[in-house]
Amino acid sequence: MITSTANPRIKRLAGLQKKRRMREEEQVFLTEGLRMFREAPPEMLRELYVSESFAKKEKELICRKEQEARIQAEILADHVFSHVSDTKTPQGVLCVMARRKEPSAEEMFDLQTGGKPPLLMVLDNLQDPGNLGTILRTGEGAGVTGVVMSSDCVDLYNPKTVRSTMGSVYRVPCRREDDMERFLHKMKEAGIRIYAAHLKGTADYDEEDYTGGSAFLIGNEGNGLKEETARMADTYIRIPMEGEVESLNAAIAATILMFEAGRQRRRK
Amino acid sequence: MITSTANPRIKRLAGLQKKRRMREEEQVFLTEGLRMFREAPPEMLRELYVSESFAKKEKELICRKEQEARIQAEILADHVFSHVSDTKTPQGVLCVMARRKEPSAEEMFDLQTGGKPPLLMVLDNLQDPGNLGTILRTGEGAGVTGVVMSSDCVDLYNPKTVRSTMGSVYRVPCRREDDMERFLHKMKEAGIRIYAAHLKGTADYDEEDYTGGSAFLIGNEGNGLKEETARMADTYIRIPMEGEVESLNAAIAATILMFEAGRQRRRK
Repeated sequence: MITSTANPRIKRLAGLQKKRRMREEEQVFLTEGLRMFREAPPEMLRELYVSESFAKKEKELICRKEQEARIQAEILADHVFSHVSDTKTPQGVLCVMARRKEPSAEEMFDLQTGGKPPLLMVLDNLQDPGNLGTILRTGEGAGVTGVVMSSDCVDLYNPKTVRSTMGSVYRVPCRREDDMERFLHKMKEAGIRIYAAHLKGTADYDEEDYTGGSAFLIGNEGNGLKEETARMADTYIRIPMEGEVESLNAAIAATILMFEAGRQRRRK
Repeated sequence: MITSTANPRIKRLAGLQKKRRMREEEQVFLTEGLRMFREAPPEMLRELYVSESFAKKEKELICRKEQEARIQAEILADHVFSHVSDTKTPQGVLCVMARRKEPSAEEMFDLQTGGKPPLLMVLDNLQDPGNLGTILRTGEGAGVTGVVMSSDCVDLYNPKTVRSTMGSVYRVPCRREDDMERFLHKMKEAGIRIYAAHLKGTADYDEEDYTGGSAFLIGNEGNGLKEETARMADTYIRIPMEGEVESLNAAIAATILMFEAGRQRRRK
C-alpha cells in the first residue's frame, strides 16, 4: 500500500491529472469513480488505483477487473487517494486508460452505426470541457458515429471532459484534426453533407434530410464558427427561436441537431 | 464612490450574493455583466453598482439605464467591485433586481405564447444551478410558456443559475410550488396533458402530440423523478437511445422534449 504523497508514482498520477502534455506523452487518460470503473473496457485499462476503503468495499469487482485486464490494482491510503483525485469527494477508484487509436479521416467517413450512414459532429474551437463531454454522451445516445475536434478544442482527456462523458469517451470514435479545411474537403468528396447552424441560415433545421451521410459543424461558445470553417458547409440551417433568445449553449444546439437526425433515421 | 469593503452597503451586497435567505427577505436577485445589464427590464432594476473602470467605459449606457429605471448608479472602486462580484473576472456591473410576481397556478395554465396553448416544464428536485438556468434559456427559445419548480429545487436566483439563463430569468414566468401533487391535479383539470420521460415509457417522445396544452416532468439529476410525482403523469414517454447510454443530463433531456414540442407547434 502506498502511504505517502511523496511516492514517485503518486507524483506521476497527480501530474497526469493536471498536465495535458504528460497525458499526451504517455498516450493515456485518467478516469475516476465507480461508474467509469465498471464501464472501463478491459483492453484499455492499463493501471488501477483504489483507496483502502474502496478496496474493502468492492473486492469482488476489483478482482474481476484485475483478471479481465490482467493487471494488479495498487492500494493507496485514503488520504493519498484524495491527493491524486480530481474530485472533492473521491469515490476511491482511479483508472489509467490507454487511448483508443484515432480513426483516420477515411475510417470516419466509412463508419456505420447499426447499418446507418455516417453522422459526424465537427467541433470548431470548443472551449468548455463540460460541453465537449456532454456532446460525446448525448451524441452516443443519438447515434452519432464520430466526433471530430479542431486542434484548438479543449482536451478531450481533460478530467472534467472525461467525467461529463459518463463513459462515452470509451466508445465514441474521436479524432483531433490539425487541418480542418482539408478534412472537410475530403468529407465532401466522400459524399457527406455538411450542415452549419448559422445566423445566415434560411432553412429550419428540421426541414433538411439527415438520413444520408451528414455532418454538423458546431462552433465556439462565445464566437460561433470560424468563418473559414463555416464556409465549408453545404447548407446553413437555423434553429428557430421564440422570445428574445439570441443563441443557445453549444451542447444544447448540438443536442437539438443530433436528436433531429436520430429521429429522422428511426422514422425512415 | 465606495472605496472600502467594510462599507455596510458592500457587506449587504456580498450577503445577497451568498445567502438565499437574504435574497428572499428582500425579494430581489443579483445579475452581473454587460449582457445582463443591457437586457435588464427597467421596471425590475432597483439598484445599480458599477466599478470605476466600467463607469468610465460605459457612460452613455449607464446614463440611459439610470433614466429609464429612475435610479442613480453607485460607483465602487475596482477592488471593492471585485469583492462583491460572484465571478473571477468581473465585468464591472451589478444590478439588484426586483423579482417578478410569481404567476398563480391558474395563470400558468392560461398562459399563451404567440397564441399557442401552454407548454410547461415541471422540475422535480433539480439540484444543478447550471441545468436550471439552461432549461430557462433553452425553454424561452423553444416557446415554453412557464416553468414550475418543486420547493426542493435549487434556488432560481442563485448567481450561477441567473448567469446561465443569459437573461431568460427576466422573461420566463416561473413559479415555486410547495404542493406539487395538488398543482399537478389542477393542471390535469385544466386540460393540460402531463408527460414524463421515464424508464417505464413505451411511446417514443416524438410519437406523441404536444400541440395541445402540454407539460413535461423533469426529475433530479441522479435519481430521476420522485415516484409520487411520476405517478401524476398521463403518459410515460421514452427518449430512444443508441449505444450504451443509460440516461441523459436533465437539461439535455428537457431540450429534446421542448424542441420536439416547438417543432410540432411550428409545423401545425
